[in-house]
Amino acid sequence: MMAMQLPRGTQDILPEDILVWKQIEKVSMETCEAYNFKEIRTPIFEHTEVFARGVGDTTDIVQKEMYTFKDRGDRSLTLRPEGTASVVRAFVEHKLYGSPAQPTKLFYTGPMFRYERPQAGRMRQFVQFGVEALGSASPQLDAEVMALLMDICRRLGLTHLKLVINSLGDTESRVAHREALMKHFEPELHTLCGDCQQRFEKNPLRILDCKKDHAHPLMATAPSVLDHLNEESSQYFAELKQTLDLLEIPYEVDANLVRGLDYYNHTAFELMSTAPGFGAITTLCGGGRYNGLVEQFGGPETPGIGFAFSIERLILALKTEGVALPTAQGLDAYVIALGKDAHMQAMKLLYDLRQAGVHADKDYLDKKMKAQFKAADRYHAKYAVILGEDELARSCAVVKHMQRGTQQEVALSELVPWLRQELEGEEHHE
Amino acid sequence: MMAMQLPRGTQDILPEDILVWKQIEKVSMETCEAYNFKEIRTPIFEHTEVFARGVGDTTDIVQKEMYTFKDRGDRSLTLRPEGTASVVRAFVEHKLYGSPAQPTKLFYTGPMFRYERPQAGRMRQFVQFGVEALGSASPQLDAEVMALLMDICRRLGLTHLKLVINSLGDTESRVAHREALMKHFEPELHTLCGDCQQRFEKNPLRILDCKKDHAHPLMATAPSVLDHLNEESSQYFAELKQTLDLLEIPYEVDANLVRGLDYYNHTAFELMSTAPGFGAITTLCGGGRYNGLVEQFGGPETPGIGFAFSIERLILALKTEGVALPTAQGLDAYVIALGKDAHMQAMKLLYDLRQAGVHADKDYLDKKMKAQFKAADRYHAKYAVILGEDELARSCAVVKHMQRGTQQEVALSELVPWLRQELEGEEHHE
Repeated sequence: MMAMQLPRGTQDILPEDILVWKQIEKVSMETCEAYNFKEIRTPIFEHTEVFARGVGDTTDIVQKEMYTFKDRGDRSLTLRPEGTASVVRAFVEHKLYGSPAQPTKLFYTGPMFRYERPQAGRMRQFVQFGVEALGSASPQLDAEVMALLMDICRRLGLTHLKLVINSLGDTESRVAHREALMKHFEPELHTLCGDCQQRFEKNPLRILDCKKDHAHPLMATAPSVLDHLNEESSQYFAELKQTLDLLEIPYEVDANLVRGLDYYNHTAFELMSTAPGFGAITTLCGGGRYNGLVEQFGGPETPGIGFAFSIERLILALKTEGVALPTAQGLDAYVIALGKDAHMQAMKLLYDLRQAGVHADKDYLDKKMKAQFKAADRYHAKYAVILGEDELARSCAVVKHMQRGTQQEVALSELVPWLRQELEGEEHHE
Repeated sequence: MMAMQLPRGTQDILPEDILVWKQIEKVSMETCEAYNFKEIRTPIFEHTEVFARGVGDTTDIVQKEMYTFKDRGDRSLTLRPEGTASVVRAFVEHKLYGSPAQPTKLFYTGPMFRYERPQAGRMRQFVQFGVEALGSASPQLDAEVMALLMDICRRLGLTHLKLVINSLGDTESRVAHREALMKHFEPELHTLCGDCQQRFEKNPLRILDCKKDHAHPLMATAPSVLDHLNEESSQYFAELKQTLDLLEIPYEVDANLVRGLDYYNHTAFELMSTAPGFGAITTLCGGGRYNGLVEQFGGPETPGIGFAFSIERLILALKTEGVALPTAQGLDAYVIALGKDAHMQAMKLLYDLRQAGVHADKDYLDKKMKAQFKAADRYHAKYAVILGEDELARSCAVVKHMQRGTQQEVALSELVPWLRQELEGEEHHE
């Protein structure tokens, strides 16, 4: 029966676990709305070319981790491994750059797919929440997306956080740095891993990002990108830091921070968890500026910046920090019916209650009264509404307040408005 | 650049279109919660066997429409074409049948995938919202899920609806009907399409569901399933109808209603739009009872019933009926900054406003004052907060009520609480 189990690296989110997901989504979306970011939804798969071009041919994602397949019309499709390429594809395809409301500020959330070795907080299907701001090259916008990220974390209750920033500079600066990197690694190239030897030709910057050669002595002495920024790029980075200082958002500069995607320039940043015991992979969120990406999709010259975090990782961080997570709300009412006629009448009452917005349920398994009371307890019902043959004959029900233990008879015709009023009264007292 | 466009049969949901999606999701979820259904999320893909067994080998879905592919570990995976098989797989895998809270009432929403010819309201990637209630064989539960469906539609504002129900009976009744169907079709089998000739052996009931042979003379005279229900199945169907009558939910009985999935027994139902001009495919939602499916997944004998609707189709129905759709909320405040220092100060003010829950934005494109006022208009901002060199020198801002045209100076240190109070006052007057 292996085939009837979850595919490796995926998970079900069960009702008991879903509240923290909904909380993160709600807070993230509400915060985005306060910052004037609007939701966009793109398909689960794209033509493979979108990611090959948009994420970068030299990345691990494109080379090793994509779920790529042919559809019945022999087109190569790929389950999206990240969100930025799809959003940029949509931005160009729908000519959003033509809107007078610029920059175009978007957010998205949904499942992403990478064929990796599953481990804690790293799944083959995982959920990303991300934002993209397209159409302004102001470093203030870089600060804004970081402020948005920090605000989401603050609202969720996370406190053990470290924001790390770096600048990769503009094209001129990157070329200068690239040459310095090649000069640095070339004499000892044979001591690096096979992947790095390939990267040396295609994108030597990504050598700094290698998981295998992480501790290689050449890494520590590699030329810093910050030493190769030209005047304009330095100025850009200085303005970003000045804005973050003004907003009192703490950060560290790390010249070795190189994001694993080909398309970044100028600002790159990561948010780490510093919670003790969080685990080996401390990155919660990564982001950066990607001026030039829109052109690669056939759009006009348009700067852009964004970030994305995985909700699975954020949940790990919330749990590691011991943040109080939301708990399930109980039912307002549980209808207890005795006998076939009462069960039928209970259906009618239930329908009326629910249409009036009262969260209510009843038994569907012909249980005895005692077991029905147990169910009322199990669902943390505020009220039990008891319908027996006696009550039915007199067109009324006995309503019991489960916590106080008090009870009273209420006419069936009055029950819905009566219960609504009681429930409103309860809320004001809570 | 074809490769850089949306895959055929998929769509982007842009910010201007997203509100109706969010409205449908919100109403559907809130209604489910009132009915004590809880959300579950399953992966986008499953082992192919889950659908082959759970949806049925003889269905069009499994035979023609699935997105099936091998992952890098050579496992056959399939993008989910519907939700029930996945939910039942999760129900068994996590032993949800062992919880004392039965029936297990679940809902889900998310993208599904079928390789079909795209047409209005039928996409290759579409979003389904569905519910499953597992663990009770009471016809009251069948009535409950239909009540839930009708309540979702009522809350959304749909009125042109027709609920069609049928009973396929239990196994004994189905065998009797199957024999009658075979007897009916056998003499003229060669006049039916190739698919139907195959169905004749595997599942003759599905001949009634054929799109090609729909108008074949043998269809109208085919033996009715309702004439082959045994005593128990008749009684079951009668109780369902009695409950729907009590709830005053109008319905029609159609003995030809056979859902295109193999797993149904007893109750089958569809909700149709009767809105003039809705189009050729009128079905909004399909559902039915599937006692026996849980056993096919290796679980204990457990009855079940559910339904699913596509959100795309519901949106079509809302638009066809001319139901008023939600419109975008404007910003609370747009900060207009003049000069470099003011732009910097505006970042700080903006951050404070947003952290206080005020929806606010500013310019990131160095626009002139007039263009910034235009942007405030475009975002339907209630207030413009103007920060010039003058105001900055005196640590204050000019706040203009965009609709009234009134304005006044407010100290920067007072601005956040002042604006919050004004906005609360506005809400009470709306």
